[in-house]
Amino acid sequence: MIDEIRAHLDALAKPRGAMGRLEALATELALTQRRIDARTSPRQAVLFAGDHGCVAEGVSAWPSEVTAMMVATILSGRATSNALAAAADCPLRLVDVGMTGARVDGPAFFRDARLADGTAPLGARPAMTVAQFDAAWGIGASEAERAIDEGAVLLIAGEMGIGNTTPAACLTALLTGLDPAAAVGRGAGADDTVLAAKRRVVAAATDRARGGADPRAAIASVAGYEIAAMAGFYAAGAARGVTLLLDGYVATAAALIAETLAPGSGKAMIAGHRSAEPGHQAALAALGLTPVLDWEMRLGEGSGALTALPLLDAASALLNDVVRLDQIGADRAD
Amino acid sequence: MIDEIRAHLDALAKPRGAMGRLEALATELALTQRRIDARTSPRQAVLFAGDHGCVAEGVSAWPSEVTAMMVATILSGRATSNALAAAADCPLRLVDVGMTGARVDGPAFFRDARLADGTAPLGARPAMTVAQFDAAWGIGASEAERAIDEGAVLLIAGEMGIGNTTPAACLTALLTGLDPAAAVGRGAGADDTVLAAKRRVVAAATDRARGGADPRAAIASVAGYEIAAMAGFYAAGAARGVTLLLDGYVATAAALIAETLAPGSGKAMIAGHRSAEPGHQAALAALGLTPVLDWEMRLGEGSGALTALPLLDAASALLNDVVRLDQIGADRAD
Repeated sequence: MIDEIRAHLDALAKPRGAMGRLEALATELALTQRRIDARTSPRQAVLFAGDHGCVAEGVSAWPSEVTAMMVATILSGRATSNALAAAADCPLRLVDVGMTGARVDGPAFFRDARLADGTAPLGARPAMTVAQFDAAWGIGASEAERAIDEGAVLLIAGEMGIGNTTPAACLTALLTGLDPAAAVGRGAGADDTVLAAKRRVVAAATDRARGGADPRAAIASVAGYEIAAMAGFYAAGAARGVTLLLDGYVATAAALIAETLAPGSGKAMIAGHRSAEPGHQAALAALGLTPVLDWEMRLGEGSGALTALPLLDAASALLNDVVRLDQIGADRAD
Repeated sequence: MIDEIRAHLDALAKPRGAMGRLEALATELALTQRRIDARTSPRQAVLFAGDHGCVAEGVSAWPSEVTAMMVATILSGRATSNALAAAADCPLRLVDVGMTGARVDGPAFFRDARLADGTAPLGARPAMTVAQFDAAWGIGASEAERAIDEGAVLLIAGEMGIGNTTPAACLTALLTGLDPAAAVGRGAGADDTVLAAKRRVVAAATDRARGGADPRAAIASVAGYEIAAMAGFYAAGAARGVTLLLDGYVATAAALIAETLAPGSGKAMIAGHRSAEPGHQAALAALGLTPVLDWEMRLGEGSGALTALPLLDAASALLNDVVRLDQIGADRAD
């Protein structure tokens, strides 16, 4: 397959390899869909929201209430993710999988699928049961199925959940073997005190999870509802043969879960960017992915994937819309 | 101005600096237009075509006829630049400033403004007169004026001209002080023989140009018609306060001319990418520009700028379409 893609790109009416990394991205894109004429439209971004008991353990600069506040901002259409989705011409949906606080009464692109009012504090005890994990996975899978049934060939998962770089760090350490301390970064702006608390919580939770016999139970014990949903979303999307464009650290933690529980899912993935979080590179490397952008972004909300998306559109245009040199009667000189 | 832009980005409903390099790009974009609400639409890409006498001196892997062939391909809508322009939703125009061969009878987006049938072989004698240079500059300027009069706030110049990395190398050496040998790369696929010829031609032409007393005459002696037109296009665009998104090595050589003959033009410029041509970095550094992408692209035709353009759209969306944290009643925690 890769030889066929390469031969196609080499036959186009341009010097061989002249589009550099865009040709590599076009190759990656074609491989995710197993077709040379890979497309990036229609596409769908789905943001999953959840809260985290570990916020009470001091792991975040921001209180859990900010999750609901940012969800309301997204639903009002004025968050960073809305702005970037509009710029990239990508429809957005938002799903409450496990937020705390009042239930949201949202517009048509919102789905209330809340399974619980946030996770348990994972520094002290398992974040959720395996049954809860499976339910969240199923919600994510249903979102992928829905989007694909409506025609999507490219899916983005994003998340909103104050505190969720803590479960992401636990999952990265658990699933890649990375030292828990190296998996912890400042997330959305942790100061030194918060960072120290986060390191303690991640070390304790990861140790406990590593001691478990059942991988699914270990994952559930350090996951978040929105992360479990993203994992199910990725696994279902990969099974249907669409391209999965990953966002940052939390999304890649979910991608690691998908690859662990549904091996082969990673072949459908393209990494939108490498985030500023220090553990992200290990997660990408474990999946064998090279990020499209390396821009020190660390917002989440699908924002990094949405920023990278138009570069995949360019890659698809290269695959589909350029004439071959032999079609214009020219010989190769290179 | 930069403090005001920074304060605006810091006030948005996201952790401070969380969009990383996209925030730096948004800052750059706002500075080019001297306004926080900088926009990237409407935009216009104009490709300038010309031929080069130095091709007869052995500097290119491809014969000059390929210029007309690729121009015909662009006019048929099936070249790489068409594909990328469509993907980035950017209208294209194409102007013959100095091609060889039969005059082109093109569609509405084509303009025949041919000044001569290619330049003189610059290894042996001046590529063009100062009067010809000024005429080409004026054609480029008229294209910028036309686009801006029609509403464009962002301009891209691209080029098609077999052999034009040779004048680009001469201009880069002349205007940055770079060693001519370091300014020469393989362009569109030069083998070792072609590369050696190119080095000899660039060294001879640059030496001669450096000996001249008049900067305009020195530039004209190693320019190309399409390059002179791009320089005029940039200078006129900068004077009108729009953003100039640069393409690769040849475009940046034209940008160096614009900054030399119309000082201050560089403040309107953003570098779309760093090309695979080894001299490009010196040209970018002379203009104080950091490229948006570093993807080893080397096609020309505006293709690098068109690939980077959607990232400027994302930067503009960040500036214009995201709510401030105080507007949603939240306090900063970072």
